[in-house]
Amino acid sequence: MSKLWQKTTNVNELVESFTVGRDREFDRQMAAFDVLGSLAHTQMLQTIGLMSAEDLDLVQRELKSIYAEIQADNFEIEAGVEDVHSQVELLLTRRIGDAGKKIHSGRSRNDQVLVDLKLFFRDELQQVVAEIEELFNQLIELSNKYKDVLLPGYTHLQVAMPSSFGLWFGAYAESLADDMELILAAYKITNKNPLGSAAGYGSSFPLNRTLTTQLLGFEALNYNVVYAQMGRGKTERIIAQALSSVAATLARMAMDQTLYLSQNFAFVSYPENLTTGSSIMPHKKNPDVWEIMRGKCNRLQALPNDIAMMTTNLPSGYHREMQLLKELLFPAFAELKSCLHMANFMLQHIDVKTNILDDSKYAYLFSVEEVNRQVLNGVPFRDAYKQVGLDIEQGNFNPDKTVNHTHEGSIGNLGNEYITAAMDTVLQQFKFDKTAEAIERLVS
Amino acid sequence: MSKLWQKTTNVNELVESFTVGRDREFDRQMAAFDVLGSLAHTQMLQTIGLMSAEDLDLVQRELKSIYAEIQADNFEIEAGVEDVHSQVELLLTRRIGDAGKKIHSGRSRNDQVLVDLKLFFRDELQQVVAEIEELFNQLIELSNKYKDVLLPGYTHLQVAMPSSFGLWFGAYAESLADDMELILAAYKITNKNPLGSAAGYGSSFPLNRTLTTQLLGFEALNYNVVYAQMGRGKTERIIAQALSSVAATLARMAMDQTLYLSQNFAFVSYPENLTTGSSIMPHKKNPDVWEIMRGKCNRLQALPNDIAMMTTNLPSGYHREMQLLKELLFPAFAELKSCLHMANFMLQHIDVKTNILDDSKYAYLFSVEEVNRQVLNGVPFRDAYKQVGLDIEQGNFNPDKTVNHTHEGSIGNLGNEYITAAMDTVLQQFKFDKTAEAIERLVS
Amino acid sequence: MSKLWQKTTNVNELVESFTVGRDREFDRQMAAFDVLGSLAHTQMLQTIGLMSAEDLDLVQRELKSIYAEIQADNFEIEAGVEDVHSQVELLLTRRIGDAGKKIHSGRSRNDQVLVDLKLFFRDELQQVVAEIEELFNQLIELSNKYKDVLLPGYTHLQVAMPSSFGLWFGAYAESLADDMELILAAYKITNKNPLGSAAGYGSSFPLNRTLTTQLLGFEALNYNVVYAQMGRGKTERIIAQALSSVAATLARMAMDQTLYLSQNFAFVSYPENLTTGSSIMPHKKNPDVWEIMRGKCNRLQALPNDIAMMTTNLPSGYHREMQLLKELLFPAFAELKSCLHMANFMLQHIDVKTNILDDSKYAYLFSVEEVNRQVLNGVPFRDAYKQVGLDIEQGNFNPDKTVNHTHEGSIGNLGNEYITAAMDTVLQQFKFDKTAEAIERLVS
Amino acid sequence: MSKLWQKTTNVNELVESFTVGRDREFDRQMAAFDVLGSLAHTQMLQTIGLMSAEDLDLVQRELKSIYAEIQADNFEIEAGVEDVHSQVELLLTRRIGDAGKKIHSGRSRNDQVLVDLKLFFRDELQQVVAEIEELFNQLIELSNKYKDVLLPGYTHLQVAMPSSFGLWFGAYAESLADDMELILAAYKITNKNPLGSAAGYGSSFPLNRTLTTQLLGFEALNYNVVYAQMGRGKTERIIAQALSSVAATLARMAMDQTLYLSQNFAFVSYPENLTTGSSIMPHKKNPDVWEIMRGKCNRLQALPNDIAMMTTNLPSGYHREMQLLKELLFPAFAELKSCLHMANFMLQHIDVKTNILDDSKYAYLFSVEEVNRQVLNGVPFRDAYKQVGLDIEQGNFNPDKTVNHTHEGSIGNLGNEYITAAMDTVLQQFKFDKTAEAIERLVS
Repeated sequence: MSKLWQKTTNVNELVESFTVGRDREFDRQMAAFDVLGSLAHTQMLQTIGLMSAEDLDLVQRELKSIYAEIQADNFEIEAGVEDVHSQVELLLTRRIGDAGKKIHSGRSRNDQVLVDLKLFFRDELQQVVAEIEELFNQLIELSNKYKDVLLPGYTHLQVAMPSSFGLWFGAYAESLADDMELILAAYKITNKNPLGSAAGYGSSFPLNRTLTTQLLGFEALNYNVVYAQMGRGKTERIIAQALSSVAATLARMAMDQTLYLSQNFAFVSYPENLTTGSSIMPHKKNPDVWEIMRGKCNRLQALPNDIAMMTTNLPSGYHREMQLLKELLFPAFAELKSCLHMANFMLQHIDVKTNILDDSKYAYLFSVEEVNRQVLNGVPFRDAYKQVGLDIEQGNFNPDKTVNHTHEGSIGNLGNEYITAAMDTVLQQFKFDKTAEAIERLVS
Repeated sequence: MSKLWQKTTNVNELVESFTVGRDREFDRQMAAFDVLGSLAHTQMLQTIGLMSAEDLDLVQRELKSIYAEIQADNFEIEAGVEDVHSQVELLLTRRIGDAGKKIHSGRSRNDQVLVDLKLFFRDELQQVVAEIEELFNQLIELSNKYKDVLLPGYTHLQVAMPSSFGLWFGAYAESLADDMELILAAYKITNKNPLGSAAGYGSSFPLNRTLTTQLLGFEALNYNVVYAQMGRGKTERIIAQALSSVAATLARMAMDQTLYLSQNFAFVSYPENLTTGSSIMPHKKNPDVWEIMRGKCNRLQALPNDIAMMTTNLPSGYHREMQLLKELLFPAFAELKSCLHMANFMLQHIDVKTNILDDSKYAYLFSVEEVNRQVLNGVPFRDAYKQVGLDIEQGNFNPDKTVNHTHEGSIGNLGNEYITAAMDTVLQQFKFDKTAEAIERLVS
Repeated sequence: MSKLWQKTTNVNELVESFTVGRDREFDRQMAAFDVLGSLAHTQMLQTIGLMSAEDLDLVQRELKSIYAEIQADNFEIEAGVEDVHSQVELLLTRRIGDAGKKIHSGRSRNDQVLVDLKLFFRDELQQVVAEIEELFNQLIELSNKYKDVLLPGYTHLQVAMPSSFGLWFGAYAESLADDMELILAAYKITNKNPLGSAAGYGSSFPLNRTLTTQLLGFEALNYNVVYAQMGRGKTERIIAQALSSVAATLARMAMDQTLYLSQNFAFVSYPENLTTGSSIMPHKKNPDVWEIMRGKCNRLQALPNDIAMMTTNLPSGYHREMQLLKELLFPAFAELKSCLHMANFMLQHIDVKTNILDDSKYAYLFSVEEVNRQVLNGVPFRDAYKQVGLDIEQGNFNPDKTVNHTHEGSIGNLGNEYITAAMDTVLQQFKFDKTAEAIERLVS
Repeated sequence: MSKLWQKTTNVNELVESFTVGRDREFDRQMAAFDVLGSLAHTQMLQTIGLMSAEDLDLVQRELKSIYAEIQADNFEIEAGVEDVHSQVELLLTRRIGDAGKKIHSGRSRNDQVLVDLKLFFRDELQQVVAEIEELFNQLIELSNKYKDVLLPGYTHLQVAMPSSFGLWFGAYAESLADDMELILAAYKITNKNPLGSAAGYGSSFPLNRTLTTQLLGFEALNYNVVYAQMGRGKTERIIAQALSSVAATLARMAMDQTLYLSQNFAFVSYPENLTTGSSIMPHKKNPDVWEIMRGKCNRLQALPNDIAMMTTNLPSGYHREMQLLKELLFPAFAELKSCLHMANFMLQHIDVKTNILDDSKYAYLFSVEEVNRQVLNGVPFRDAYKQVGLDIEQGNFNPDKTVNHTHEGSIGNLGNEYITAAMDTVLQQFKFDKTAEAIERLVS
């Protein structure tokens, strides 16, 4: 396998296979971003006299071709080529000769990988945001649609107080709005330029890092070059934490779904073709989608810990195992996006049972209602509480099942418009347009 | 033990001891915040006709007294009293009679605890921010002070390229600036009002939740009452994630310190009274502070996972084990604050070794410098790279040890002013003043 | 504070408070074991000529007194004394003068702590085994008692096939029998002698480590002294893994209990004084014990990860943060023992509902039974399966609710005697007697 | 896609793709074991009259053919076939008609998967044991070979006392011997037969589970059928814990290696073709193998937590996400085996530096030696300790560098024969022969 750094001694094949691992598989996903990095880097090189205008012209034209090929899925890392960076350089030199080799000036493999990862993560986070937004809208829509359908509310898994499908769907929408704050924090930390940090200690070239920052649409620099390198592993862990928070919201919703689909609750149902059967029990309609989602999301909840375990107690400076983090985080984006998508898809087909509270086992839901009614009529709380308790114990509790909740965020006043506004406030801070414009300028 | 909900049946003592656990110990830390919650709640109750002006007057005066007593450390949860909420109510009724009992109207124990926790966490986060800011300033100061003292930079723990103490200290400062984005996200999620959500399903009282939001200085509401309850566990996990990121920064710095203090590096030293000796090796000067800090911070890095493990797969609605999260998160604030404080303290006494690079084993640091020098003089990169490699292999490598790095974030151009500006931008988003003013109004 | 290693320089108080932390609190639990270690060590010292017979006599007599005082709870670590080892030495020299100082010969603080920890862990594991055994017996008893009471069996939380309380209780018993294999492995790894490894590199004294191994009732030595030190952190992690497996069994049982206590299942109930009420819902009978147990056990499930996070990537050799592991593992023993005890206590009072399967929603449990019945009568499986599925879809499914399962481990043939035998086989491998005899010899 | 349980309704393709996931990829690894399970199951079916002798003959002959094809790598799961079980049944019915369908009698998909997993895990654990044994032997060999080459021993990363390569290599050997206890515990728990538990609640067929236990070479049954199902997830977690302990040993060794390879230690080196270079620093010889190994092993250390997170708080009974555990545990076996193999390979080529202790910075290693020397000559320990400390402070410390350690497990008396004996004692408890004989009988 051809390596940029190779001198005269061949690396033992066993060593190579062990250390390169699944890099080529994951590198494919970074290909477009590697080209973007080189487009910006070479523009900058020309401004500081490290690349001639002619070479720049050649290089830019050809990099844009390669970018188009990647977008058209006409790109692969050839057998015998170590990674995506080598593949791009190989294509370039094959097509434009020595000029192609110059894209490596003023850069180390380390900062090249760092910037590729940042661009890739930024793009993935944008896609995650889009999926969250769609699911959020679906949940708000369901919350509004079913705002009058009551549901038992549980505490300690005991029947507690009246709730509603409006509250239930809306709660998960608001949960996503809070999760979005973490996605935003992760995005901000990601959206900073490490290019120019070389191997983590900068270089003697008079690089213009502010220029590449602007060209690549980054919000700011990772200024300190030692910190830029320290961002490896840290960025991954923080993104994983943000993803894990969304995953926790989905996992809880999935748990509720499997429970509510159980014959012992029977609050919701789905068309038969969205559930699966059993090889031995002909009547089963299993909620496999929600179970798999719960499993995938709990896996994601453990991800930040995996990354922390792999990076803890490493002294500052690059270490080779950083590369393994790709195997952990890259699939996590795909998993979370597919879970968000499937949750949305399933919710589009949910059937909600009405008149659930007619079942006598839910009568006690109204005990607090009754206590409060007496309080509003002037009975001291403790007295009302004792009286209702006594009625229940003596079998004399026959509640009025009308629910009249009016305060902000309650059954009768869901406040979905405020929740939507809160989500919008976070969304507006991402400034995806600015980034998209920069990328558009780079490749056109 | 007297419990608000107790009817006629005594709870088995074994059960009580097992379930109450260490609550009273941790509840003491929430006392002031419990009073703040009641001050706001009762003001609101009066506006909706659930408390008379006379009762409100009595209650407010006495709650403010209790608040002052708590601040003066004249408060304890008496033997036989279950928790802080019961203790405050007990004091109140002891002093002003039946009016004291009315603070419970329109509230459940669940939202009372939720709001206490939010107020407590908000306060702790503010303290953490202050400690981070001080450590940040110390690091920037050291970075500027030692910007010209060179240090070997490592990759793969191999001697790689010249670095500097300016870069090293500055990197950790910039790391804290990024961590602050997570603290901000956690703060935003924390700083929302759950009061009025009752047991997680709202109530039939015409509560004015917007009013208590303003009175308590919250930025917004947790609107949906089911989500307000769902915030239990979630808020804790997100705060733990934010703390863990700061902890990861400190743990890495601590690892560097223990390495740099080793006789095999000997890059830094501390006055003898800040290190500890050995019972059997008279010459030892052990970096125990940094080791303990590393351990405490790695413990904090595992904390979000602990919380996730305890909350995963619980259906929506309150579950009693939520209470156990206090045992995990409350001490974490204290631990992190003390680690930040000690890091700052130690760094005030650090001695930095000069002329480290004179040691011959660091000569190879300059191989890249030499390659770049040749490139800047027109030699193609690959040729320069091969020549320097050959010189090294043949023992002919005698580098010029001048370092002339000029780009943004490099040894000669640290960019600490930009890093400081970035930190300030995050800090300004906390708006601690607004919160402080609200609390001041409540208690005076 | 007086420290053994202190020379002339005082350690800064802030440093001391930060590094000593909660050591004194946890050290108290190791006191008896510290004395046992010294009893064995000094006997050995005399045999190799490092302690005179007269001194040994003095030291042994006084150590036995201190041991008795500890057992009678007449022992404390005095203010100003760093740890339990210093306290014991202080008492000794106070009472018998210089002879007391000689117990330190041929030992380092490191191997002294190591042996204390091993003896403490060994003792705690024995107590855990005893608690597991009691709970196991309780479960087997309940399984036998309720072997004929049927219960719905669920897969995917969907009603699936008939189960029984006999199976349900018995399953958790068998789970504990498997968990016991891990406790045994942890015990074996713990029950090896690290004494004599000094600071982790051995010493020039002609120590007889085989003798202290026998005296302390250890099964074998940690031979290699570097490995003996490496056992710190590793032993803790492995014990935590073993405890976590028991905790996982309890947590799952607790989850079942909270579900089965819900009004939506109502399979079991408890006397009112073993559940707790609600401050606002008079009818609630919350399963707080099981919820708290679930929380504590899930906390324990995260413990091995906490320990791994604190020890990962530390090079070989002692590091000070090892001390912090006491804060994690010591309380874990107490927590698990109390959970095992409470589970046992609760199960003694469980009420089991009969005739559960009369409810029409459980009719489908018998679909597989019906398919199998037809198969046993010669109908091909696929045909029987399709026919029953069709009957169900068309509302013609009227099952015979007799359950006649006869194979090993099924409803009608629980095999509890084999499960008990399997548990006994593991229990017999602990050899607690041998250890108890050694300790008895040491202290009498 | 053809599914065994499919009735008339097609499952939505999106649902299928989401829920089936990567099953087919992982199922391929279970193929041989699925056939073994069917070989045993059908033999048993015939003895209880559920399969005719003629059918059995046909089925056995054909299953053995398929087994041979799998072993010869002539087997694949065809497009449109859901999993390995369906594929085997498809081949069977294609070749022998209706008799092939009867292998499903008296079995559920659940216990079929359970037994496949147990057989697969058992086989993988045996391979892991073999790799550990080889590495163990290599370490013992190196320990004996380099027993006289001294090395500085560190505590707190400070130069502490003399150590040796004999101790260093031997420590990791002994660590593996302790880890083997956990592998053994995991093996015992794995090596029990779940077949016959059907969907987790047994069946009305008069299955002979003892017979399949013997035929498949299992040590015992998972008796209770509910527990047999509960073993899913639990077995995986326990195996992961055992693997993680081996991984922790390797990760620590890898950390030591990267440190000792650093120019600041330079204790060991490797042939150039086993290290890798840098794209920008011509002199670098990076320890990538050890870094990647450290990363992979730390990933493995986090694995038990991942599994716990996915299974925690699930009530008893099967849940679909159990299937996802294959994605976690299957690759873990391969990863650990390759790490063990690479560690062994690298150690075969290690170069060990002699005369390390001649460097003046290691003089203090001998301070304890000197103290002990004086003690052996009759000076009280405290006096000797103070004198040596004073000599060091005043620059008068000129140690004798002879090391004469003689006690068990010390530099001069490594005890490798006892460590080897301890390893052998554990190894003999696996009884792989018995299992191999059973499998041999089944397939021939």
